[in-house]
Amino acid sequence: MAEEAWGRWGGDDERGALNYIGAHEVVRATRLVKEGKVIPLAQPLSARTPVPGHRGSMMHFMQRDGGDYAAGGKRPGGFQFAEDTVVMPLQFGTHIDALCHAWHDDRLYNGFSSHGTRSTTGAARCGIEKMGPIVARGVLLNVMDDSGNALAKGASVTRARVEAAAASAGVAIERGDVVLIRTGWLETMLTDPDYYDGEPGIDIGAARWLADAGVAVIGCDNFAVEAIPFPSGEVFPVHQLVIRGYGIALLEGLVLAPLAAAGATEFLFVAAPLPFVGGTGSPLVPVAVL
Amino acid sequence: MAEEAWGRWGGDDERGALNYIGAHEVVRATRLVKEGKVIPLAQPLSARTPVPGHRGSMMHFMQRDGGDYAAGGKRPGGFQFAEDTVVMPLQFGTHIDALCHAWHDDRLYNGFSSHGTRSTTGAARCGIEKMGPIVARGVLLNVMDDSGNALAKGASVTRARVEAAAASAGVAIERGDVVLIRTGWLETMLTDPDYYDGEPGIDIGAARWLADAGVAVIGCDNFAVEAIPFPSGEVFPVHQLVIRGYGIALLEGLVLAPLAAAGATEFLFVAAPLPFVGGTGSPLVPVAVL
Amino acid sequence: MAEEAWGRWGGDDERGALNYIGAHEVVRATRLVKEGKVIPLAQPLSARTPVPGHRGSMMHFMQRDGGDYAAGGKRPGGFQFAEDTVVMPLQFGTHIDALCHAWHDDRLYNGFSSHGTRSTTGAARCGIEKMGPIVARGVLLNVMDDSGNALAKGASVTRARVEAAAASAGVAIERGDVVLIRTGWLETMLTDPDYYDGEPGIDIGAARWLADAGVAVIGCDNFAVEAIPFPSGEVFPVHQLVIRGYGIALLEGLVLAPLAAAGATEFLFVAAPLPFVGGTGSPLVPVAVL
Amino acid sequence: MAEEAWGRWGGDDERGALNYIGAHEVVRATRLVKEGKVIPLAQPLSARTPVPGHRGSMMHFMQRDGGDYAAGGKRPGGFQFAEDTVVMPLQFGTHIDALCHAWHDDRLYNGFSSHGTRSTTGAARCGIEKMGPIVARGVLLNVMDDSGNALAKGASVTRARVEAAAASAGVAIERGDVVLIRTGWLETMLTDPDYYDGEPGIDIGAARWLADAGVAVIGCDNFAVEAIPFPSGEVFPVHQLVIRGYGIALLEGLVLAPLAAAGATEFLFVAAPLPFVGGTGSPLVPVAVL
Repeated sequence: MAEEAWGRWGGDDERGALNYIGAHEVVRATRLVKEGKVIPLAQPLSARTPVPGHRGSMMHFMQRDGGDYAAGGKRPGGFQFAEDTVVMPLQFGTHIDALCHAWHDDRLYNGFSSHGTRSTTGAARCGIEKMGPIVARGVLLNVMDDSGNALAKGASVTRARVEAAAASAGVAIERGDVVLIRTGWLETMLTDPDYYDGEPGIDIGAARWLADAGVAVIGCDNFAVEAIPFPSGEVFPVHQLVIRGYGIALLEGLVLAPLAAAGATEFLFVAAPLPFVGGTGSPLVPVAVL
Repeated sequence: MAEEAWGRWGGDDERGALNYIGAHEVVRATRLVKEGKVIPLAQPLSARTPVPGHRGSMMHFMQRDGGDYAAGGKRPGGFQFAEDTVVMPLQFGTHIDALCHAWHDDRLYNGFSSHGTRSTTGAARCGIEKMGPIVARGVLLNVMDDSGNALAKGASVTRARVEAAAASAGVAIERGDVVLIRTGWLETMLTDPDYYDGEPGIDIGAARWLADAGVAVIGCDNFAVEAIPFPSGEVFPVHQLVIRGYGIALLEGLVLAPLAAAGATEFLFVAAPLPFVGGTGSPLVPVAVL
Repeated sequence: MAEEAWGRWGGDDERGALNYIGAHEVVRATRLVKEGKVIPLAQPLSARTPVPGHRGSMMHFMQRDGGDYAAGGKRPGGFQFAEDTVVMPLQFGTHIDALCHAWHDDRLYNGFSSHGTRSTTGAARCGIEKMGPIVARGVLLNVMDDSGNALAKGASVTRARVEAAAASAGVAIERGDVVLIRTGWLETMLTDPDYYDGEPGIDIGAARWLADAGVAVIGCDNFAVEAIPFPSGEVFPVHQLVIRGYGIALLEGLVLAPLAAAGATEFLFVAAPLPFVGGTGSPLVPVAVL
Repeated sequence: MAEEAWGRWGGDDERGALNYIGAHEVVRATRLVKEGKVIPLAQPLSARTPVPGHRGSMMHFMQRDGGDYAAGGKRPGGFQFAEDTVVMPLQFGTHIDALCHAWHDDRLYNGFSSHGTRSTTGAARCGIEKMGPIVARGVLLNVMDDSGNALAKGASVTRARVEAAAASAGVAIERGDVVLIRTGWLETMLTDPDYYDGEPGIDIGAARWLADAGVAVIGCDNFAVEAIPFPSGEVFPVHQLVIRGYGIALLEGLVLAPLAAAGATEFLFVAAPLPFVGGTGSPLVPVAVL
């Protein structure tokens, strides 16, 4: 695996392929809006939000609530309020991976040392706070099978399958696009827990084809974009190629069924990661506007 | 304080004034984009993000980082990664208040009982997950003084001041607008910690005028939208009127200086609260697109 | 269920049966030490510590560690250090329940209103910080079957069984004793996860007999002291009787096999709950000294 | 700074000077109990517990409380309960430092590599779970000034001062003793916040003298045992010598005024750190029994 896009936007760049989105791409994307329909692409967040086995879930604690008043809590000036705190992994629910999330050989995207990512500070380079909001053309590619069924557990989505989906949607992938790939995994997983551990996803060929086309972000309705289990002897090869080599952020756990049901193929896409300083990712609600 | 908008969108409504934003308003808002300039309106999130004295800050923990590999951590298939978890109040940094956040007389907006907001479940009604993404026309009103200085600690922004700011900006407030009010508090507070505890903000007259105009959201560059200290004998009167009476969500802690510096008066506004089930609010990154 | 010990130590008492332990009982207990053998009775605490299904586990975050230095962290004056933070339920691992933990009819032990236990303050009455350290005679009762096997899932330990175990151990239960009951559950559960959800434990008759004998604390090697599933139509009847009626704290999740292996029947028992203000319990390491 | 006690208890030892406490020392300690008086030596734990500026405080969240029932929460079988979760640094309130807490030159006590202390696992060596309960003779040394006042901010307690305090108490320090040193800092700090940042404590000479005498643990009523600010050019020199060189755990934040008020000089001392796997320390309640 090489260092495809290192240096492309200068040695200090920490935003990678998001640089493909310029003012022209933003204006063009807003002009795709015809119906005024707003579709959120995120899962609700709670202790029930599905997580991979190796990760913890979130916790939600009320620090003041209606029960406190019911039990006699004072209400100065009549005012009552509720507030709360969460404990939450940043790679949780529908989320985007920062470019510091995955790497190899102790080098992140653009050659930054992974030694700058520490307990005390988080990621000195390529943290989620460097990403900024994403406003771009979104493209939905449906790679479910011909009968509209989810792909089989662990099925690989190849470059040919992605190209066919684009042709079928009538869209050509362009620089700065946010490409969203629907495998059917999310809905299937919710009703079949066994389905969680092996996921259909893109293979290295599809990933490279999208990356070479200049996409800004790749999103999927599964938890790791790429197919799991991995090809023999490899571990997250798509993450390594796409995040580290190309500087392309991955968007995971998307809810794409309503977007598909609305017949969307291209649309205004807006997503804004929370700027956790030194964070490795962020839960977020990507929005499609049709 | 009355129940101005209760029932306006039906007895089951939990979205309040966001209902003013229909397909027409969305399309119209996207057409305001001319330059393709994207401006995030949020503060970075870390343990250094300013918080009011009665609230805790956030914590950010690395669960796997570059140091672990530097110390000899295994990298199967060459793969290395970092991940992290936060402990974070939902009313933190730049955030939006859900309609369950503030009330009085044990009734929330639209008459829902506050007894449904409990430790075990969060808010059964009007939680942040009910809000959905906001795509609307944004309007920036500058209420700083004539010399461009921040308002004095605790200064009240009246209806007349808001009207004058709108006139000065050349915009008429319309139904479904997201109105962002710049007092200069945020930048001043960062360099003058004493300034934190008394904030300039809107008074009840300004709040009612905006609400009656049909605004969907009111945002401000301070931590509570309204002036603090409160008028004698009252506690968060604007919260009570606007959130509970009118069902209008408040957006707090906005970073508005760059938006003002760009000369923006009206723009495409997009914000998507994280859908914490039963949550009282959400940190988020509102985005202005010019 | 009645209010057996309410008022016994005055209307303000929040320590219940711990009041049975006076200076005489303390001195006597220390004289039981002959061998100078110290046996901790607690499980290790980690994300792998078994928990009932409805409760979360703990999380352990390193805020500074050896990896940070391996990655180049500074060491002023040569000094290096590690520190960490946990997120932990108070009813976790080997722990003691405070007298505010369980109740019915809105009244805690000694008649205190449960309305004093709120999100904002924790328990105003009978919180774990009121308990103080426990230094007393410990007694080990083995209620495993004659072959030394764990009791069957959900088996009830009756008063007769407890009396027989005391007779077999050659001890008479006295006022102020800490009685530890070994069912074999803990070791069995570790190798048979299904065993977790139904636990052998004491029934209401055994509980009442121990309570009437004046025991200060009842401990067990399961997660709830009492048998689960409960008798039909009842929910935690032993908790309700013992904690609320008698003011007796329950000690759960004890590791008793090493104590049994050492042949202990009576011993110096020391346990000191962490004084979380308003907390409902505390993980702790009870110690037997033989 | 050398490696005074490395290898003394074998190359695999992770308990250091606690090995000095044998069965003989345990029995002897229990015989010091005359009055049956039990004195806890710990601060209450809450968000108000004082912490050094660089550390966070704890948070305490109720997950179920009396308010939830007051607001209509169900009570199957009449059962009501409360439970809660804390977020807590392990070096918090009255706590003991594990031998993995402080080191230099990438080597912990007994030569273990600090590279074994990582985000993902905590400390592989010398974690708090290796320590076990401490049952020993406790000795109280009063180093306050002759008028019973707290030592001045930053004052160094020398070997001569410690020896004088022992003579004044009429005790000779012996192998396996737990030595508790009262400077008056804790009470003074509570009423004078400025006093927090400079603390009286032992100097390197006093530390070495105690260590050479074979003490098992050194405790103090301040937050770092040693004097702060440090001697010029050094950072936590006592921590480095005592923890790393001698394998002696430090007990910090002790509440010693009540013990002094009771006239105690030697007593049964019992303390049991929570066995967090890989943890760097533990809040705990040391107990003196007189």
